Amino acid sequence: MDLVTIPGSRIVEISRLAFGLPDVEFLCFGESDYPSPASARDALVTALDGGATTYPDVRGTPPLRDALSRYLTELHAKPVTEARIQITASGMAAVAIALTATVRAGDRVVLHSPSWPNIGNAARLRGAAVDELPLDATPEGRFRLDLDKLEEKLRGARAFVLNSPNNPTGWTATRAELVAILDLCRRHRVWLISDEVYSRLVYDGAAAAPSLLDIAEPDNAVIICNSFSKTWAMTGWRLGWMVVPEGARDAISDIVEVTHSGVAPFTQHAGAAALADTAFTEAFLAHCARGRDMAGEALAGLNGVRYAAPDGAFYAFIGVDGATDSMALARKLVTEHGVAVAPGSAFGAAGEGHLRVCFAQRPERMARAMQRLRDGLRARISQGSGAGGG
Amino acid sequence: MDLVTIPGSRIVEISRLAFGLPDVEFLCFGESDYPSPASARDALVTALDGGATTYPDVRGTPPLRDALSRYLTELHAKPVTEARIQITASGMAAVAIALTATVRAGDRVVLHSPSWPNIGNAARLRGAAVDELPLDATPEGRFRLDLDKLEEKLRGARAFVLNSPNNPTGWTATRAELVAILDLCRRHRVWLISDEVYSRLVYDGAAAAPSLLDIAEPDNAVIICNSFSKTWAMTGWRLGWMVVPEGARDAISDIVEVTHSGVAPFTQHAGAAALADTAFTEAFLAHCARGRDMAGEALAGLNGVRYAAPDGAFYAFIGVDGATDSMALARKLVTEHGVAVAPGSAFGAAGEGHLRVCFAQRPERMARAMQRLRDGLRARISQGSGAGGG
Repeated sequence: MDLVTIPGSRIVEISRLAFGLPDVEFLCFGESDYPSPASARDALVTALDGGATTYPDVRGTPPLRDALSRYLTELHAKPVTEARIQITASGMAAVAIALTATVRAGDRVVLHSPSWPNIGNAARLRGAAVDELPLDATPEGRFRLDLDKLEEKLRGARAFVLNSPNNPTGWTATRAELVAILDLCRRHRVWLISDEVYSRLVYDGAAAAPSLLDIAEPDNAVIICNSFSKTWAMTGWRLGWMVVPEGARDAISDIVEVTHSGVAPFTQHAGAAALADTAFTEAFLAHCARGRDMAGEALAGLNGVRYAAPDGAFYAFIGVDGATDSMALARKLVTEHGVAVAPGSAFGAAGEGHLRVCFAQRPERMARAMQRLRDGLRARISQGSGAGGG
Repeated sequence: MDLVTIPGSRIVEISRLAFGLPDVEFLCFGESDYPSPASARDALVTALDGGATTYPDVRGTPPLRDALSRYLTELHAKPVTEARIQITASGMAAVAIALTATVRAGDRVVLHSPSWPNIGNAARLRGAAVDELPLDATPEGRFRLDLDKLEEKLRGARAFVLNSPNNPTGWTATRAELVAILDLCRRHRVWLISDEVYSRLVYDGAAAAPSLLDIAEPDNAVIICNSFSKTWAMTGWRLGWMVVPEGARDAISDIVEVTHSGVAPFTQHAGAAALADTAFTEAFLAHCARGRDMAGEALAGLNGVRYAAPDGAFYAFIGVDGATDSMALARKLVTEHGVAVAPGSAFGAAGEGHLRVCFAQRPERMARAMQRLRDGLRARISQGSGAGGG
């Protein structure tokens, strides 16, 4: 049966293995165990009971578009008008629609690597060639983007997808780096698609990571993608948004119309309520910061492990010396040690030799899971690291 | 700014005009004024409060997949296993994903015309060429599909999208026609994508329209698309599904993963509750049947109008003698007569000269709207029908 196919997810492979086992701590998904905002729940029920169950405006409900315009204008250095905002069925849908709007079959799309595998697969689904630029790994377990190498890749490319703060590495571009990246994209006439879903999850006291919304002009060929999943712990609600160039929203909403045709109005009311719930975002960030601290303590001084606490997002991305098959290592951790983590190879070739652990979990779970992870990594090291099994 | 673009919706154009006016009856959308099932509302709230707010299984929640397997197996002549069911973010998403899975840039996709414009636009977005086969209009205002002409079109095509019961015409393929269509598609190795969202809205006393699920084998290259929007009056809930060939779901769910990544679990619980609510579907069908009767009475004996009550779906598709610009006529009806209807030209060239009216409205609204429509059509006829303005 001749179907268009893309590679499946290696994270799904680990999770299906884990679901078949009796006692596993799941740190393999990009998801916290923190409950979604009660404010969002209440707004959803009120809207549902108020009859917000008919076809939505495909661009998004006016109250949510207005709320996002105010929220983003307050958070970032430049104003964002409502006319640039498009609501989508998820952050993934935002990225997929950005790629659909900008990329044609045969185009070349540049990604940095490691990156979230769905981004590359969405580009492949458009018939585009995916060209990966490896981030440079430092000996301390950090990552950086080489701008000269980026410029090489951008020549003749159609789009560059940036994800900062980055899943899985936590790498977070500085404002100066973003200025340089935007400048390179503009110089080479490359669409810049900026996946900023971890924008609010930074640990330096700033309200948000540096964003394209701080520096790009409304008429630049830049699309910013975001979601309620991470900042508001609303992964299952399936609600995202895009900020598109001035004048581009009609074309984008025509694409949304024939892709998923808008988002449930009651869910959009929940999103507007979450945006206003600043107490929630503060408490959730503290939850993530506590998990980050616990991961750091658990991994400190562990032989054969390279790890630096990330600047942003909610993952520990752990380099394991001598590991050449992170999938095999992840399998061993789940089956022999009861802890499910994502293999670094799921995030592209540059992720091999690493494991990704989502630390946005409550302390009891983190303590149990980190103990298992330490045990597993120690057992591996005591066996010697040569075997292909990572 | 170089963006991939597709044509915008002419229905949206009429509706935006109508939203700016003080007193308009909206019959231009494919949406009823009937409230969504209370059972769906209750199931959603229960699921939400039970914590069904985390990442869904991208294939759909097991309870909804199981419920759909049972529902479809009971409704149709052949069993449908759970392993063939994929949940999607809407009926539109189901069609778009079916096209994404089967069609590559440069392929040719056959549609009958008139048809829902989003289908053709979804194919265009894949970079496919859209090839329209006009349905034959009979003098009494009915439509039929010429199988010889279809075979001509299918030679060398990649996919045929069938929509029966049809939006906008109400044309409903007989079982014998479906057998012939499937046979032609198999003989010419063409994917058959069957949009069956109006499957339950038939007026001959049958439980459902003839369906590919009655005749196709699980390994045929057939994808059936459906949605909760029409049968359960849940347009705003954004919930659809696909039945895919045996063995194809993994590839399909990989595509869903990078397109919108699953549907809110609480919404899926609502869908499962709606499926079980047979009292609702009966009452809703009666609501539609009453609207159909009222449309028939209003249009009977009106000079210059060709109309036959449709076999399926919930639209009156009205031929207007001498009308060459249905968009201009629809504009005039909304601005001068306060009734918003969809221009037939929105559904392809074969729809020109027609108007589409959604009759799934409560009697008071139907009475008011039909009076306005009659007045508008009479005024037009008394002015003579020659002017290009329809």
